Formats: sequence, structure tokens, C-alpha cells
Amino acid sequence: MKNYARLISDGMLAENSATRGAMVIKPYGFALWENIREVFDAFFKKTGHQNAYFPLLIPVNHFTKEAKHVEAFAKECAVVTHYRLKKGEDGKITTDPKAQLEEALVIRPSSETIIWPHFKKWITSHRDLPLLINQWANVVRWEMRTRPFLRTCEFLWQEGHTAHASAEEAIEEAQRIHEGYRKIMEEHLAIPVRVGEKPPHDRFAGAMNSYTLEGLMQDGKALQMGTSHFLGQNFAKAFDVQYTGVDGERSFVWGTSWGVTTRLIGAIVMVHGDERGIILPPWVAPTQVVIIPIHHKECPIEELMGYANKIKMALEGGGVRVKVDGDDNHRPGWKYNRYEKQGVPIRLAIGPRDLANGVVEMVRRDVGTKESVSLDTLQGVIKRELKAIQQRLYDKALKRQQEMTHLVDDWKTFQEIFKKEKGFVLAHWDGTTQTADAIQTITQATIRCLPMDGKMQEGGKCIFTGNPSRGRVLFAQAY
Amino acid sequence: MKNYARLISDGMLAENSATRGAMVIKPYGFALWENIREVFDAFFKKTGHQNAYFPLLIPVNHFTKEAKHVEAFAKECAVVTHYRLKKGEDGKITTDPKAQLEEALVIRPSSETIIWPHFKKWITSHRDLPLLINQWANVVRWEMRTRPFLRTCEFLWQEGHTAHASAEEAIEEAQRIHEGYRKIMEEHLAIPVRVGEKPPHDRFAGAMNSYTLEGLMQDGKALQMGTSHFLGQNFAKAFDVQYTGVDGERSFVWGTSWGVTTRLIGAIVMVHGDERGIILPPWVAPTQVVIIPIHHKECPIEELMGYANKIKMALEGGGVRVKVDGDDNHRPGWKYNRYEKQGVPIRLAIGPRDLANGVVEMVRRDVGTKESVSLDTLQGVIKRELKAIQQRLYDKALKRQQEMTHLVDDWKTFQEIFKKEKGFVLAHWDGTTQTADAIQTITQATIRCLPMDGKMQEGGKCIFTGNPSRGRVLFAQAY
Repeated sequence: MKNYARLISDGMLAENSATRGAMVIKPYGFALWENIREVFDAFFKKTGHQNAYFPLLIPVNHFTKEAKHVEAFAKECAVVTHYRLKKGEDGKITTDPKAQLEEALVIRPSSETIIWPHFKKWITSHRDLPLLINQWANVVRWEMRTRPFLRTCEFLWQEGHTAHASAEEAIEEAQRIHEGYRKIMEEHLAIPVRVGEKPPHDRFAGAMNSYTLEGLMQDGKALQMGTSHFLGQNFAKAFDVQYTGVDGERSFVWGTSWGVTTRLIGAIVMVHGDERGIILPPWVAPTQVVIIPIHHKECPIEELMGYANKIKMALEGGGVRVKVDGDDNHRPGWKYNRYEKQGVPIRLAIGPRDLANGVVEMVRRDVGTKESVSLDTLQGVIKRELKAIQQRLYDKALKRQQEMTHLVDDWKTFQEIFKKEKGFVLAHWDGTTQTADAIQTITQATIRCLPMDGKMQEGGKCIFTGNPSRGRVLFAQAY
Repeated sequence: MKNYARLISDGMLAENSATRGAMVIKPYGFALWENIREVFDAFFKKTGHQNAYFPLLIPVNHFTKEAKHVEAFAKECAVVTHYRLKKGEDGKITTDPKAQLEEALVIRPSSETIIWPHFKKWITSHRDLPLLINQWANVVRWEMRTRPFLRTCEFLWQEGHTAHASAEEAIEEAQRIHEGYRKIMEEHLAIPVRVGEKPPHDRFAGAMNSYTLEGLMQDGKALQMGTSHFLGQNFAKAFDVQYTGVDGERSFVWGTSWGVTTRLIGAIVMVHGDERGIILPPWVAPTQVVIIPIHHKECPIEELMGYANKIKMALEGGGVRVKVDGDDNHRPGWKYNRYEKQGVPIRLAIGPRDLANGVVEMVRRDVGTKESVSLDTLQGVIKRELKAIQQRLYDKALKRQQEMTHLVDDWKTFQEIFKKEKGFVLAHWDGTTQTADAIQTITQATIRCLPMDGKMQEGGKCIFTGNPSRGRVLFAQAY
């Protein structure tokens, strides 16, 4: 795989901006995000969630109401302290000291603390539950070391926030979302994930339990692709959100929150990319098929373009996303290269001879195979091939993930793995934060999750301390 | 029409938040925004625009590059000065003075100054033009007096930003968008608008010309519903954006920007609302038809619900947005009232007798007419009635706007109108800012636009000074 930053820039997905740590998502990258967003949004709506929108800015006194939450986020908050600029005596424009806010505002790093006060207004009785809200928004978390899509000071995401009458229902919700996330990541992004619970020391700030989805990148490092949290009654108590039950009793509600971000684009790049560029899974690719007319003196571009557009319309009628590149400022070879870099799943080239024979030349981005396809069968072939590409990307990623997952029982091997090929390591852990910290210091590997997979629930001895363990946990170096 | 704030809260569109001047858009209000957004987004994409995403935070030195732009926005900017909170000695959490940014960041009030530096990177030759970008985003403008949807410190909008090879092409673009806006406002929001150019003193900060769309609310006040700006070469020069022409010459590009905001929801409320609540135009209503089963002892709710859901599915198959309210905690009367307040265009009620007779009772929200409709014809009737409601809302608003538009030639009448019924006044103006200011001071009326309508290009005498005028302009008191 090419260098990550190169894949991003060659793929025309994003670029750096003048604002430190914030990137510009370019049109092609944003179209990819729109497709991803649509899949998740449909899942949320289908499971009864409604979108809403809450303020970007949170008064500090609200933000600090849940103790663990503020502790975790206080260190990385962008703080608005003034509401005006002014021209100084030197003619330079700066913050106007006279326009200082009485109470500073934090740009949301996550919206629990601005949303829960409204849950208090909206919830009176058990009939108001469950309350299922989602928000698509931008958030800011101040990061010192940033990488496009993976870690940026501002990012786009969705954040679900729900309230329930019982712990069981809230846990069920957190798990339902977790499972829905998994399906979308595997079926639409073609990325296999390992699922499980975060160890207690790595839960979301204010959560009782955090469910995570961990992808494995080609370099053997893990990427946290999404999380779903059971919040217990922490936020309900912090914001006094109670309901009257069927029995007339007042109780605090139970909460969840969950999110995925533009980081998913980084995952797609790092899981599927190759030496020639990014490869986009067909189900979310902005362009699934690009058609390139190759004109010669004998065959005018108009004729080829007419032919190309007819094919485009036919394929679009079948629900395929098609682009015709008739730009005559660039040679076909340049275009082939460009769309390879952009990871367009299928390329069709049409020359004068193809036109005469009623065929097109089809090339698959993932395997590079070239095939002449008759127009009569094109619609069916394209659909079959898109499906095949989607499946192959997933299978390849799964095979790699499985090959790079190691069951390890001795500390020496554990260390060696993280010095060399990396990957996922399933090993025993004594359950203490101290041990997790020591292992991280030596190997840079962290506990990605306590796998939900039942097979892992066998007892054993901690890889580092030799103390008893109740099951294997998943280690990896992570982004 | 009921009080505006009541219409908003009864309609469940939005509510105030703990953040001064920022509101929460509730699920029903946000679903309305999603439908509005979809219509505009389809128009932008159809006319060749691509969505992208630029940073929320703009470094002050970028923000100040276009002189007029910063002058206008400096007074209302939220400024981020710190990137961390800390716990003080008293245990209270406050801004950490050690985490002050070297250069302050402004939360975008509009994105020209963060977008144009990228236009510089993306544009080299005439082949890169036109560059047609749109962004859906939140922006912050510090306002002292706020009203939900009409004027809030944070609002949601789309902002188009384009670059062109010639002034003509840029003007054409600004006008094409302006015209597209008009069509959507009239055809989808059912709001007639008066279109024209802003007078020079009221142009967008940094624009050469601003095209506006002005709606008339029921109280006789005008609302600016959207604007489209021809930026000339102002931003191109401020950010040094040049292209190489066909002739090899280097020239600055020509720009446009344009936007509509969540304010459109406020317009819908104020134009169509009545004594009973808001009325949503069917083409953007989240729920077009609500079905309310009315059960009795003799007829169990299950049977009615089965019937209601069958109707729902049939209508949805025809592309109608339907909700069944089977909640048995509330009586039918309570529900009728609720959906009237929420402005759902059509209500269907089904009782046991209707079930036996194969009919439903249909009530139109706008006129309140009640009709028994046979199931066989329901699909067709609903489609016809939705269309009729949409048309009637528009016709009614147009009639009111026309009746409230006055051609005035004497200063006394002009003053009286703005003391009483208000509305649009077409009157002569001598073209000076001084006169416009004087008129505003006395009557609170401002020049909403220089109408594009050719008829208004006749000469006359200024209503206030008696000096020569080249045509009538549109006056109104405005939100």
C-alpha cells in the first residue's frame, strides 16, 4: 500500500487547511461521506430514531455537570471567550477585550451535556420512553498530532443519544446499534471488524460500558471504527432526568450514546488501498463505473460521447452510479491513472472499434482484469462485477485480518509480534489497569476490546504477570 | 395567526436552549429541514455543483484579508482563544490561561475566507473553471436580539461558492441560483417572493451585487428569504486566485456566493400559520397524512390498526408520507388538536363504521373541510388534495402579498401605511444612502430590493426628497 497521505491526496479525498489540525473534505471525499451517511441514517430511521439538532456551543457550567465526562474532555476543548473582533491602534484586527463573555462556551466535543437538559423537558412518563435521538454534526477536540480523517481537531460524525425505562432496554439499544454498525461496516464498507467491550479503564467518559468495533489496517495496526455506550444513569442523575413508571414511581432513566465519524473514510483507505491508489467499495463509491471514450481521427468524439452517454443512461436506469469523462484535454492513459488513484471500481473504455462491434472494454480496479463485454449483456455484467468486487474486498480484508490474528501465550512472542508484523493478539490479561499500562509502555499495544466471542471466555494466566485471567482479550497497536 | 413563539412551540419545531441565542431544532422541525434541504440539494447537484466541507474555525489573519468582509462580520464573531479548560483552586472549572492560542480563531460566520485559499490551489487554468462548490454547515453570528429560526446566534444553512472565467458567467451563475431559489420557495414552500437587487449600501460584505428574495409575512413585515451574490474579483484579489486563459494570459477569477438558511422554516410558520397552529406545505411536510384510528368497545384497536396500516402502506407505495397514530393514551380529540398544531396537511380518521363501509373520514388542515372517501378512490383523492392544498397555500399567500403591495407617491400615505397595515410599498427613491437612512429612521422601513420587474424602471420623484428617481424600489419593515 502506498503512503497514507499520498493515497488521500492522490485520491482527491481531502487536503490540509490553514486551520491547524483541520482538513478540507474535497468534493470526491464528501460524496463518499454522503453515501456512508445515507446508509447509517437509513439504519437509524428504520430502528425508530429521529434526527434533531442541538447547539454547537455549550456553556461551561452545563459542560461540567457530569464529573468523568468533563475530566476527559476538559483537556481538549476549544473555548469561546469573546464575541467580537476589533481593529487595534496599529490597524491590526484582534479579539476585542471589551467583548468578553461572562461565561465561556465550549465547542461541543460530544453533545451529552447540551442534550440531556432537553431530555429532562421531554420526558415525564414511561410513555415518553424510549426517546431515540440522533444528530449529524461537527465536533471539535483539540489534538496535538493530527492525521487526515483519523485524528483531526474538527470532525464530522453522528451521535446517537437515547433514554430508556430500564437498564436492560438501554443495554439492548447499545447492543442493537453496535450490531447494526458491524453489519454496515462489513457489508457496505467491506471492512471486517472485531467486536467487544472496552476494558473499564478505556470506557467513554461517563459510560458504564462501551462496545467497540475494531478494524485491522494493512500495516497491522488497529483502528477503532465506532463505539456504542451504555451510560447507566450517570447523565440522568447529573441532569435530573426522571420518569413516572406504570406504578406511579419516579425513577431516573437509563441512557446510551453512540457514534461513527469521518474516520471511516480513513479506514477504507487503509484497509483497501494498494500501490496504485485507494479502492472504494462499490456500495459507497461516489462513482461506480467511469466511462472513457477513446477517440481517433476516424471517429469523432461526438459519436463516441453519444454512445457513452447512452450506456450511462442505461446503467443509471439500473441504479448504477456512472460518470463519463469526455474531457479532451487529457489522454486516456492519464485518465486511467486518475481513476485508479480515485479507486473507481469499474472502468469502461470505448474506442471506434468497440463502437463498431457493439462492445466495451471493462477493467476492474481491484484485480485489474480486462474483458470485452457485449452491450447486450453489459447491465447484468456490471451488476455482477460490482457485487464481486464488494465481496472480494471484504474477503481479502477478512483473510488478512484472520492471518494477522495471533493466539499468544508467552510474553516473548507477544513482544516480538509487536516489534515486527503487528496485528491482533489474543492473550490473557489479569484484569488490572496497571498490567495494561505496563504492557502498553513496553510494546505500545493496548487492549482493543474484551471480545464478545464466547470462545474467548476460557480461563488462563496473564501474559505479563502470570496472574489468573478469565479470558483472552484483544491486543493491538492502534491509531 | 397565533403568536409566533406559540406556533413554534405548539408545532414542536424548536425550543430555546441553555446557550444564549441558540435553539434546539426538535425532531419534527429537523425532519422539515431535511425535506427542504433535499429539494435545494437536488437543484444544486442538477446544476453541476458539488458538496464539500471546510473548517469551522478560521484563523484571524485569513478572516481579515477581504477588507469589507471583515468590517461587516468582525462585530458579531464568536472567537476561540483557548484550547483547554482546567480545574481552579476553588474546584471550579474554567478556561486554562496557559492554553491560550497564539492566533485566535473565528467560528465561521460565512466561509469565503476559508474557502478561497483552496480555490487558489484548485484553479490553474481556464479548464478548471467554472468551479462550483456548495457546503451544508452551521455558522455563528453573534446576535443580541434573537428569535427562533429568524435570528439565532447559530444557524444551519447552505453556502454556495463558485469561481468563473468572466464577469458575465459569474453574474449568470448568481442569477441562475437566484431564479432556482425563487422557484423552490414558490413551488415547494408555497411562498411568493419579490425578487430584485439589494441597494448598494445593503450588499453582502465583499459583493459587487446582491440578489435577494423577499417574502411578505402575515403581519405585513418582510423577510429576506435568501440571497445570491456576485462577488466580482474581490475575493479573487484578496486571496490571489488567478487562472491562465485560452490565450495564455493570467487573470483573476470572478466569484459568487449564495445561501439559504433554517430561517425558511420561520417563513413557512409566518406565511401559512393560522389561529390553530402552523400549516405545512405538503411538498415539504414530514407527515403529509396522519391516520387516527378511533376505537370503541365493539371494535378492538387491533382490527382498526390493521386497517390503518394497510392504508398507510398503500399510500406510501404511491410516495405519500404517512403516519398512523395508534397511541391509546390519548383521545381522538386530543390528537386532532395535536396534528392541527403541527400543521399536518391531511387527517384521516377511521372508526368502526368506516371500517364496515370501506371508507375513511378525510379532513384538510387548511380549510377544515370534512369528506367521507371510499377506499377504492383514496390514493387518487389524497394526491389530488395534497396538490390542492399546496396550490391554495400559495394562492392565498400571493393574494395577500398583492393586496398588501402599495404603489405610493406621497410621503404622508407612505408614513401612514407603515404606522398601520404595513406591507410592501413601491415608491421612488433618489438613490442616496442618506435618504434611505432618513426614511428608515422615521418609518422603520428599509429598501428590500430594487425590483427586477421591468415595469418599475420608469422615472419619478423621490418620495422623501422629491429629487429625481430612476425607478420604484420596494420598501418594507423587515425582520
